[in-house]
Amino acid sequence: LQPTIAVDALGGDDAPGVVVSGAVQAARDGRNVILVGPSEAIRSLIAKEGGAGLPNLTIEDAPEGVAMDESPLAALRKKPRASIRVACELAQSGRAAGVYSAGHTGAALFAAHAAFGMMAGVERPALAVIVPTRGGGSVLVDAGANADCRAPHLAQFGLMGAVYATILLKTENPRVGLLSIGEEAGKGNELVKDAHAALAAMPLRFVGNIDAARWFHGDADVVVTDGFTGNIALKVGEAVVAMMAARLAEAKVGLPSEALSNLHYAKEGGAPLLGVNGLLVVGHGRSNADAIANGIALTSKLAEGRVVSKVAEAVGRVLK
Amino acid sequence: LQPTIAVDALGGDDAPGVVVSGAVQAARDGRNVILVGPSEAIRSLIAKEGGAGLPNLTIEDAPEGVAMDESPLAALRKKPRASIRVACELAQSGRAAGVYSAGHTGAALFAAHAAFGMMAGVERPALAVIVPTRGGGSVLVDAGANADCRAPHLAQFGLMGAVYATILLKTENPRVGLLSIGEEAGKGNELVKDAHAALAAMPLRFVGNIDAARWFHGDADVVVTDGFTGNIALKVGEAVVAMMAARLAEAKVGLPSEALSNLHYAKEGGAPLLGVNGLLVVGHGRSNADAIANGIALTSKLAEGRVVSKVAEAVGRVLK
Repeated sequence: LQPTIAVDALGGDDAPGVVVSGAVQAARDGRNVILVGPSEAIRSLIAKEGGAGLPNLTIEDAPEGVAMDESPLAALRKKPRASIRVACELAQSGRAAGVYSAGHTGAALFAAHAAFGMMAGVERPALAVIVPTRGGGSVLVDAGANADCRAPHLAQFGLMGAVYATILLKTENPRVGLLSIGEEAGKGNELVKDAHAALAAMPLRFVGNIDAARWFHGDADVVVTDGFTGNIALKVGEAVVAMMAARLAEAKVGLPSEALSNLHYAKEGGAPLLGVNGLLVVGHGRSNADAIANGIALTSKLAEGRVVSKVAEAVGRVLK
Repeated sequence: LQPTIAVDALGGDDAPGVVVSGAVQAARDGRNVILVGPSEAIRSLIAKEGGAGLPNLTIEDAPEGVAMDESPLAALRKKPRASIRVACELAQSGRAAGVYSAGHTGAALFAAHAAFGMMAGVERPALAVIVPTRGGGSVLVDAGANADCRAPHLAQFGLMGAVYATILLKTENPRVGLLSIGEEAGKGNELVKDAHAALAAMPLRFVGNIDAARWFHGDADVVVTDGFTGNIALKVGEAVVAMMAARLAEAKVGLPSEALSNLHYAKEGGAPLLGVNGLLVVGHGRSNADAIANGIALTSKLAEGRVVSKVAEAVGRVLK
């Protein structure tokens, strides 16, 4: 039996059209989906996509969304029935096994935190993203939830990221590296120096500092950093891939699409927020329908893989 | 008349062989070069490269180098005649117009700081690197000299970077952006929030926060950040370019080399240290002979362009 995923129909630059299109695609692939948004509008968009008769695609009414330029906390206070809040409450009440949103990341994080609460021992939730490397893939954590961090936060990210790597990359005993600008323990900023000791004290296969060259060479399965650095690293990677693809297109190089497709960051469809007592996956704001469908599939897979309870178990054994 | 460049013959992963080879190449291109290292060994390497008769290639004896795993301060104290120290003293005494080293960056920074001193008003020197974008190029500052920074440092980096962009990119009134994870003034970590105000108070064409997508789209000529984030961004970019090049090679895609050549970070050959009262350009440790020759050419060009006095003038007008 497939888990049911609550999808924020108003989240994303091209919402709700592209979200409904992606959700219809996911439902056709066998996922159980609840689209959360203004019922009438969603219903007619589903019909337009030819998905009207799908029994595994339902609607939960939520009249309004959170715009990208709104302050997330103020918006959520003002809008008790915002789609991301309603979606998180569906998961909290057990009607859904997880939530997917390609909307305002800050609003999604606040809504999930409010609905699910934090895992005992975790001070800050973190976004975990799969970043392609020459070795296949790595888990980058935190990819953007916390702009300012302290060393214990990074140690907690390492612990949670290792569980995620075990489930998603199927890596037993994953190698955990600390992103820095040099490999020796003394290299890096003050946060990295403190975090090195904190990570070394965790029951992890800690491989020490890792620089970008070794990261993309595939020398770590989990790469730990603060959310500011992690988000910059992720976005620089995306931007450089986009720039190279544009240069190659201008040079009229006939590229085999498979040569670059697994470098496409949107392919995974989203990043789970680790550390809260519930499943939220956030997608890229610029997601197209395929990316939305991939994001829903990822959320479904993580619900089936019981990622939340596995992270909570691991955290519970180590932290208190 | 070409300026004379003191080259650290013992700096670089493949030093001194590759450095001498690059220096001979630079001398053949008309640069005036002093190779600083153990005389006898350097002399025979020059002969091996067929450069024995070049009148514009001389040697200054310096018996020892600084190894990559040495603590830079301790090494420099212990080795008063280390090649990077002797090279910086040649520039300080006026026998050379600038120094180039592909060796231990930390040691080069300390040696330059000790020999040249800081410009009045500048608290921290910063490395400025040209990063290719869809718009052509941008100056990234600080690319790695200061792992931990405060807001006034970033404002000073913006001022110095703008002068460098004017000289090297030939951009009048360059657009200065602050690297962050969102474009609104409130987005970013605490340092970015403080630095936003500090940069806005400078006599600069400050375009506010810039994310990686806009940076690589070409929306800023100068991108300001702390040296930890800057170095991570630079190295992630390099690593992703290398990874894509490897994938394309595996897929046997016949790439027109010009399509990627201007994405090659090594092409510029090095990064000047802005903020000290003298010219030091540091190159990549993995530089080959071509990169070394490019680095010497860049140092020569920056000496001719009077980058140090122009930065000092700009800084003197604004800071005190």
